[in-house]
Amino acid sequence: MKKIKVKAPATVSNVGSGFDIMGFAFDGAGDILELSLRDDEEIHISNQTTCSLPEMAADNVVFPALKAMQDQLKSRQGANISFIQKINPGSGIGSSAASSVAAVFAYNELQGRPFDPEELIVFAMEGEKMVSGAAHADNVAPCMLGGFTLIRSYKPLDIVKVPFPGDLFCTVVHPHISITTRESRAALKETTSLHDTVTQAGNAAGLITGLITGDFDLIGRSMVDVIAEPRRKKLIPGYDMVKKSAIDSGVIGVNISGSGPSVFALSTSTQTANKAGMLMQKKFLEHGLTCSVYISGIANKGVSIIQE
Amino acid sequence: MKKIKVKAPATVSNVGSGFDIMGFAFDGAGDILELSLRDDEEIHISNQTTCSLPEMAADNVVFPALKAMQDQLKSRQGANISFIQKINPGSGIGSSAASSVAAVFAYNELQGRPFDPEELIVFAMEGEKMVSGAAHADNVAPCMLGGFTLIRSYKPLDIVKVPFPGDLFCTVVHPHISITTRESRAALKETTSLHDTVTQAGNAAGLITGLITGDFDLIGRSMVDVIAEPRRKKLIPGYDMVKKSAIDSGVIGVNISGSGPSVFALSTSTQTANKAGMLMQKKFLEHGLTCSVYISGIANKGVSIIQE
Repeated sequence: MKKIKVKAPATVSNVGSGFDIMGFAFDGAGDILELSLRDDEEIHISNQTTCSLPEMAADNVVFPALKAMQDQLKSRQGANISFIQKINPGSGIGSSAASSVAAVFAYNELQGRPFDPEELIVFAMEGEKMVSGAAHADNVAPCMLGGFTLIRSYKPLDIVKVPFPGDLFCTVVHPHISITTRESRAALKETTSLHDTVTQAGNAAGLITGLITGDFDLIGRSMVDVIAEPRRKKLIPGYDMVKKSAIDSGVIGVNISGSGPSVFALSTSTQTANKAGMLMQKKFLEHGLTCSVYISGIANKGVSIIQE
Repeated sequence: MKKIKVKAPATVSNVGSGFDIMGFAFDGAGDILELSLRDDEEIHISNQTTCSLPEMAADNVVFPALKAMQDQLKSRQGANISFIQKINPGSGIGSSAASSVAAVFAYNELQGRPFDPEELIVFAMEGEKMVSGAAHADNVAPCMLGGFTLIRSYKPLDIVKVPFPGDLFCTVVHPHISITTRESRAALKETTSLHDTVTQAGNAAGLITGLITGDFDLIGRSMVDVIAEPRRKKLIPGYDMVKKSAIDSGVIGVNISGSGPSVFALSTSTQTANKAGMLMQKKFLEHGLTCSVYISGIANKGVSIIQE
């Protein structure tokens, strides 16, 4: 039976001012899964990682993602999926997106590539819908395509790859508490003042300008989020101190990764990225939390085959 | 006595998705004024144009703008200001911004240039405060600096020049009704749904990406405004038909210029810009409104000296 092994990178969504619309892929973490097609219609999932995953296939994000794809293909061919490496669920670095993207990408390859990567995004978004109640694309898109992506519009879905400077490095610190996307969504207000809407759009536009023109200072100034950060940071013990420690170490900007609890920082050298990682970890420890720290460049490449 | 003549270009603010944060200057219209310093502290305004302007100097936008500048200079030296050419007030192409910018720029020149153009923006914004109740910069900034500008933030004021493709042309059609900025502000809602905030930020970020990367199709797709256009268009008779006629003629995007009633369109050739202008004018005429039509490129240059 044909078998394929793929790797899907971790992703940081929101990126400060791009709430629900921006994200980027980074090399430091990711999902690895092996997929083979079956002769029947069953989806069978096995877990070789240390993370706990839902035992029932139907409870895993890959299930609605593959189902949506099968609906389009008018096929019900089953698959064996084995998770070999898994981003910690609830870490805020695109764990569910990585699983969904890896699964639909691998399945698509073994089906003879009926869809382009861009077309696969909408299927993987069904996995996000399962975990958060809404089909977001801000992790799925960069995980699939690599680099920085902008969701210009959800209806119709319009995803734009945004050029970014090569010498941009990412620190992600994951304190070992888990916040579900649902909890994190519930912390948000349903309405925004006109003033905040203007502020958010200004910063999102500034972030894009900084990324494309390579203006690091502008990137930093634009990583201001008036929608999610003020409300979600309360779910992350010591957040303000952690943020301050990163800024003191010379990073260009810091914010919550996706729905948290991971906190990310961008910097222009690996030295600064490392230093920030150490200081942020230290601050979380002072608040009684151990952390995982990831340091890497922005991943130009999204999901990819590592073994056929 | 030293005398100077300056020209300040007309501007289109909002630009579809950049409500309160974006604007560009265009060559087709502008204010021309002559300014000379006085030996006393009086600000004297004379009007050589066909537009009606406030008779009292204190009621003109240049007054608070110059006052703010004088406060910084700790000087009260008066000036004679003569308007030679004036954008129609209430047209929605930055009439008040052009007056304020021209006045502070000219005064600054005759004072030996104590301020940079960037520093003058905050003074000119006082004129906007007089007419709209809020010190907006989305017309003032492009009028002062030329090209496309982004107001990344108001507090602190952070203005960014945004690169744009050279082959971009602008059609502005001004139907002869007047909408004050105050009326137009009153049409807006004070709060926005989270969904609309995300949509607006996505389009603002898309517009910037399109401008910097020269992706005309993306510029067009991103000229979507869910904040102001749906509410302000009701103040412009025939707006939907006018917009449709422009799109049918091949422009890349259409929207309300600033607070209206002017409607602008962007296109990639003067031919299309002209055609759109004719069709839009025709549609307004069908709704009983005569128009002024301006066709020009984006002005790289902001306010400038035309005679010393």
